[in-house]
Amino acid sequence: MNVLNVAVAGLGTVGREAVRLLRARRAELKERLGAELRISAVADNDVRREAKALGLAANVFRYKDPLEMARRAEADIFVELMGGFETPRRFALAALGRGKAVVTANKRLLAHAWPEITGAARDNGARLAFEGSVAGGIPVLRALELSFSGDRVLGVDGILNGTTNYILSRGEEGLSPEAALKEAQALGFAEKDPAMDVSGQDAAQKLSVLAGLVTGGWLKPNSFPVNGIEDVSSRDIAFARERLGMTIRLIASLRFATNGASPSVDASVTPTLLKLSHPLAAVRRQYNALMVHTASAGDLMFYGKGAGAGPTASAVLGDVFVLSRDILGGLPPRALAARKLALASPDLASSGWYLRLDVLDKPGALARIADALGREKVSIAAIHQDPVAGRRSVPVMIVSHPAPRGDFNRARKRIMALSSVRPEHCAMRIMD
Amino acid sequence: MNVLNVAVAGLGTVGREAVRLLRARRAELKERLGAELRISAVADNDVRREAKALGLAANVFRYKDPLEMARRAEADIFVELMGGFETPRRFALAALGRGKAVVTANKRLLAHAWPEITGAARDNGARLAFEGSVAGGIPVLRALELSFSGDRVLGVDGILNGTTNYILSRGEEGLSPEAALKEAQALGFAEKDPAMDVSGQDAAQKLSVLAGLVTGGWLKPNSFPVNGIEDVSSRDIAFARERLGMTIRLIASLRFATNGASPSVDASVTPTLLKLSHPLAAVRRQYNALMVHTASAGDLMFYGKGAGAGPTASAVLGDVFVLSRDILGGLPPRALAARKLALASPDLASSGWYLRLDVLDKPGALARIADALGREKVSIAAIHQDPVAGRRSVPVMIVSHPAPRGDFNRARKRIMALSSVRPEHCAMRIMD
Repeated sequence: MNVLNVAVAGLGTVGREAVRLLRARRAELKERLGAELRISAVADNDVRREAKALGLAANVFRYKDPLEMARRAEADIFVELMGGFETPRRFALAALGRGKAVVTANKRLLAHAWPEITGAARDNGARLAFEGSVAGGIPVLRALELSFSGDRVLGVDGILNGTTNYILSRGEEGLSPEAALKEAQALGFAEKDPAMDVSGQDAAQKLSVLAGLVTGGWLKPNSFPVNGIEDVSSRDIAFARERLGMTIRLIASLRFATNGASPSVDASVTPTLLKLSHPLAAVRRQYNALMVHTASAGDLMFYGKGAGAGPTASAVLGDVFVLSRDILGGLPPRALAARKLALASPDLASSGWYLRLDVLDKPGALARIADALGREKVSIAAIHQDPVAGRRSVPVMIVSHPAPRGDFNRARKRIMALSSVRPEHCAMRIMD
Repeated sequence: MNVLNVAVAGLGTVGREAVRLLRARRAELKERLGAELRISAVADNDVRREAKALGLAANVFRYKDPLEMARRAEADIFVELMGGFETPRRFALAALGRGKAVVTANKRLLAHAWPEITGAARDNGARLAFEGSVAGGIPVLRALELSFSGDRVLGVDGILNGTTNYILSRGEEGLSPEAALKEAQALGFAEKDPAMDVSGQDAAQKLSVLAGLVTGGWLKPNSFPVNGIEDVSSRDIAFARERLGMTIRLIASLRFATNGASPSVDASVTPTLLKLSHPLAAVRRQYNALMVHTASAGDLMFYGKGAGAGPTASAVLGDVFVLSRDILGGLPPRALAARKLALASPDLASSGWYLRLDVLDKPGALARIADALGREKVSIAAIHQDPVAGRRSVPVMIVSHPAPRGDFNRARKRIMALSSVRPEHCAMRIMD
């Protein structure tokens, strides 16, 4: 009977759940693979205590230093679930350098060290899988890698961050962003410091991984427009629903094109207004979803939990299973092509836009705003101003016809420079 | 350079699209596989004309008889896209009997000849893939087969028929079932004879394929409760929305359990009331979706087009790619286990129930209905009767608390036997 050895670095909540699942599902995995998956080594800061708590056998090697495990352990598959960046990076490079398969759920590692990590896999003929790094337990990466190979992926639109989706969808139920965030923290899935989530950076890292998987090229996390939900207020959510029949989601978008040999991609993360009948509008609470637009199969959506120990461990085990199958069969590793990725100019991407302003109640204020939009050729589809008694400033909501992002941003700049417009405002994309 | 030969039987709309895609995507597939996928043979009633229209090279063998192709053609993968049952069955058995890989999108073949087809694959060490047979272009089967291998699939709930979903979701917009069906036929995706769709039989066949993939056992298409949407009226759709905040979908459900060594499954196809916030409620028009309930990853949903030449061809190409990869790598074929499948008693499955009756306006009629329910221990959660002027009979809607299907059906039988209740009625499941 064949045996495949698995080494797991990081015995936090996800690592422990992955180890637990590997052992609980041992019989089924053995039947499916015709080989036993055995945990041969674990690494953790507190490895003795964790290994004991997990009831690991005495012959499972325990490492305090994950890098030592990556360099020495006898294992076929190295699973990285430590979190952070520098140690996981060196861990992955060490294991890949030995030609070993690596499974990771670390989006930050992949987004920021894509060329280095995929290059090490390529140079050493090593396997690499990272289903858990994007959209948690939803098997979107495998679908993109395998199922659409005879089709053509034209683009993706995703809700890739649970915390922001919780805030926005609870907002539809009347909860303020602050209260919704507190709730998400109390429920245990929002970070104590939610800056990476709220700013859109977490979704941007996941988008980078998706772009890398589809094109082979590196979409640098800071090379495309990323806007968070900091400026989105209860007022915007209510206005969208009541006046526009729309809702707001933080959407991470990619559109692919091929310019000759090298792929080109348009990327953005931005709060977006969607019709209530759009499939992504039905994604509520901490759920994630990815819409995939393909040439032949049309529009598809993959929906599920984007984070948490169970979903991530499920994705990690799926990776371990598929890599095991490939290793046992002697399949050549898939090398992610080292392509140079051309970035489409984000200024050219066209859509409708929403702009909520706080305008001082002065004569001619609205005319000056309309003039600023007109000068940049942004045409107004709707404008709305509620009478608000006893305030010097009033909220004004503007919806534009489709216009290039560059034109809209220039118009916005002109508007924000007006003395009658206060600095608080909210700008969002409108999706068809 | 390696070459893999592909033989395609059936050059209808799906077959032609599959051939077109295989050729259009040749370069990318070659790069990914390290081998060329070549169409070596085609079979069709009108093979000369179709091959010419497709511009196939002269060295592509043309067969009028698909069975001759299955028995003789030099090909590694045989693609069956003919439709029907007996010829596809003999085609698949002939190719599998030669140890050749078979790709099919034929749900009827798989549902009705599951033991024979999977047995032939197993006995001959042949590969078998059928992503296109369930939910068209949505890669649900691959996810169930590969991605959740470290997880545990507890059940699925699917919208697996586009025609009935079109009728029900257009009904939400006020269209009558008859008008919606005509529209779907005019749009080209509903059959001229929609009996298989409307009766739930098409969804039942797909459910059988899903059960087979997950358990290895054969869920016979006529061995579980299958109800169509024949009795669902505009009145039911409006009542569900306005009074219950729910909508109606034709849901195909499976729940898995393991009784010792043999898997057990509870299966049904039935019109179902869902809360408007349920992810399946957002599936409209001809779209399909499958919710997958897993132990670790939680609830997931896969959404997309369930039929059509493009989606089905995309799924077929995905299968051809994955099988090619496995063949080139020399991976052992996955044998679908020949397990005996125990069927849970459908009478025991518990849920809330909806019953719309047409009741003659006689004294004591409602009391007799309530009594019939009470005798079978079905407890009423809500009852509704609108005053309708100038009619001898009035519609009465009853919503029950959760009760076993058997109890509900016995109560329904008692009610239908009452002289004050007319035969037209509609019974539906209510999903939590």
